[in-house]
Amino acid sequence: MSQHHLFVESLPTAAAASISIGGEEAHHAIRVRRLVKGDSVSIADGRGHIADATITRTHKLPHTGEWQLDAAITQLHQHPLPTPALHVYASAPKGDHLAAMIDGLSQVGAASWRPLLTHHTIVDPREAKLDRMRRIAIESLKQCGRPHLLDIGPPTSLADALRARTIVVADASGPPWRPTDAQEITLLIGPEGGWSPDELTQAAAAGATIATFGRHIMRTETAAIVTAAMILATALPPGPAST
Amino acid sequence: MSQHHLFVESLPTAAAASISIGGEEAHHAIRVRRLVKGDSVSIADGRGHIADATITRTHKLPHTGEWQLDAAITQLHQHPLPTPALHVYASAPKGDHLAAMIDGLSQVGAASWRPLLTHHTIVDPREAKLDRMRRIAIESLKQCGRPHLLDIGPPTSLADALRARTIVVADASGPPWRPTDAQEITLLIGPEGGWSPDELTQAAAAGATIATFGRHIMRTETAAIVTAAMILATALPPGPAST
Repeated sequence: MSQHHLFVESLPTAAAASISIGGEEAHHAIRVRRLVKGDSVSIADGRGHIADATITRTHKLPHTGEWQLDAAITQLHQHPLPTPALHVYASAPKGDHLAAMIDGLSQVGAASWRPLLTHHTIVDPREAKLDRMRRIAIESLKQCGRPHLLDIGPPTSLADALRARTIVVADASGPPWRPTDAQEITLLIGPEGGWSPDELTQAAAAGATIATFGRHIMRTETAAIVTAAMILATALPPGPAST
Repeated sequence: MSQHHLFVESLPTAAAASISIGGEEAHHAIRVRRLVKGDSVSIADGRGHIADATITRTHKLPHTGEWQLDAAITQLHQHPLPTPALHVYASAPKGDHLAAMIDGLSQVGAASWRPLLTHHTIVDPREAKLDRMRRIAIESLKQCGRPHLLDIGPPTSLADALRARTIVVADASGPPWRPTDAQEITLLIGPEGGWSPDELTQAAAAGATIATFGRHIMRTETAAIVTAAMILATALPPGPAST
C-alpha cells in the first residue's frame, strides 16, 4: 500500500509533537483505507509543511461518534514557496471542466486561480462552488505531493487583474511565448469565446505581454493548464541538451 | 452563430466541386444546428484538407429516411503535416480520463496516440473503446481547427515503442526537458504507478532521453498533454523576448 496522505489546516511546528485529526480525513483513513496504530502517514498543511508521522491511536469520539486519528510526528519538512509564483486568472468553464482545470493547475504547480470576469464569461461561480473547488485542490495536493495548496480566490474583473506587475495574456494574436525571469507572474486566459478586441487593447495598455502557446484553439481549461506548465517549466534548473 | 464544422472521410480535390454528406454529421447540422440552404460551413477530412463550402440543399433520403446535406465547395485549403510530428505512447487512464487525454492531445497538436502496455498498465483498451476515442478525436478536430486528425493506434509494447529514432521518456529522474530539433519525436508517458526500474533501464539502453517536465507528480493524462504541449511549443517560430 502506498503512503497515505492527510491534510490538516495547521501542523504543530515543534518536532516530536503529536496531532489529532478528525472529520472526513480521519474517517477516510480509518474506515476506507483501514489504517491502524503503527502505520506511517504523511500530513500536509498546504502552507509548505509536510510531516512524516506514525499513527498512535484510532478511536471514535464518545459524544459525536466521529472518528479520530492521533499521530506522532517523526519528522517535519518545511518547503519554501516555489518561484516563480504563477497566478492564473481564467474564466470558469462549464460543468466538470472547472474541476479538471483546478486539478490540472494544482498538478503543474500554479500558485493560485481566480475566476476572471470578461465580456464572454458565462459562468460566474458562487461561493459554494468555489468551496467545492478548494476541496478538489486539497485532494490534488495530496495526490501530486505539492507542499503549498493552490489558492482559490474570489471572482476578479479584468481591470483588477491588470493591476499586477508582470502579466502574460494567452492569445493567438501574440508571438510564441518566450521565458521571463520575473519571480511573480500573472497569467490571463480568455474564456471559450476568446478575448474581445477591447480587452486585448486594455491588456496591452496595461503593459501585458500577449503570447501564443500552441498551434490550435484550446478549451479554456486545456489552455490554462498547458500555458501554466510551460511558464513554470522555464523556472526549472537547466539540464544538458537532449538529443 | 459561429461557423459550423463538418467532418468527412474524404474531400474532392478539385475546387468548385460539390459534396454530399449523410449520417450523424448531416443529422446534427440540419436537425440540431438548424443549418439551411445558403449557410456557409467548413468541411475537414482530417488529412490536411479544409474546404469552405455553401449548403446547396438539405433533404431526407426517401428510402432510409436519413438526412443529407449537399454543399458546393468555394475554396479548398491544403495544410502540410506540421513538424515536429509528435507520437505519444501513454497507458490508457481509467474512465473519463482517457477521453480527456485524447481531447487534450488533439488540442495541443500531437500527431498520434498509442496505448502503451507497461508493467503498471491497468487498462488495455479494446477496439470498441478505441473507436469511441476516434470519435472524440474527430469532435476535437472540429472544435480546435486542426487540419490533421489525431491518429489513434493499436496497443503497443514498450519494446516496440522503443524502436523509434528520437525518443523522450517523461520521468522525474531525468533533468529538465531541453528542446530538440528532431522532426519526428516519440514521447513515452508512464502509467499511474510510474515506470518500473527495468523499464527505465530498457529505455536508456535504447537511447531514449529521460527528461522531467514539471514540479510535481502528474496524472497520466495531465502529464501526456502538458509534456506534448511543451515539446511542440519549441517548434513554434521564435518571437521577441517577453518582459
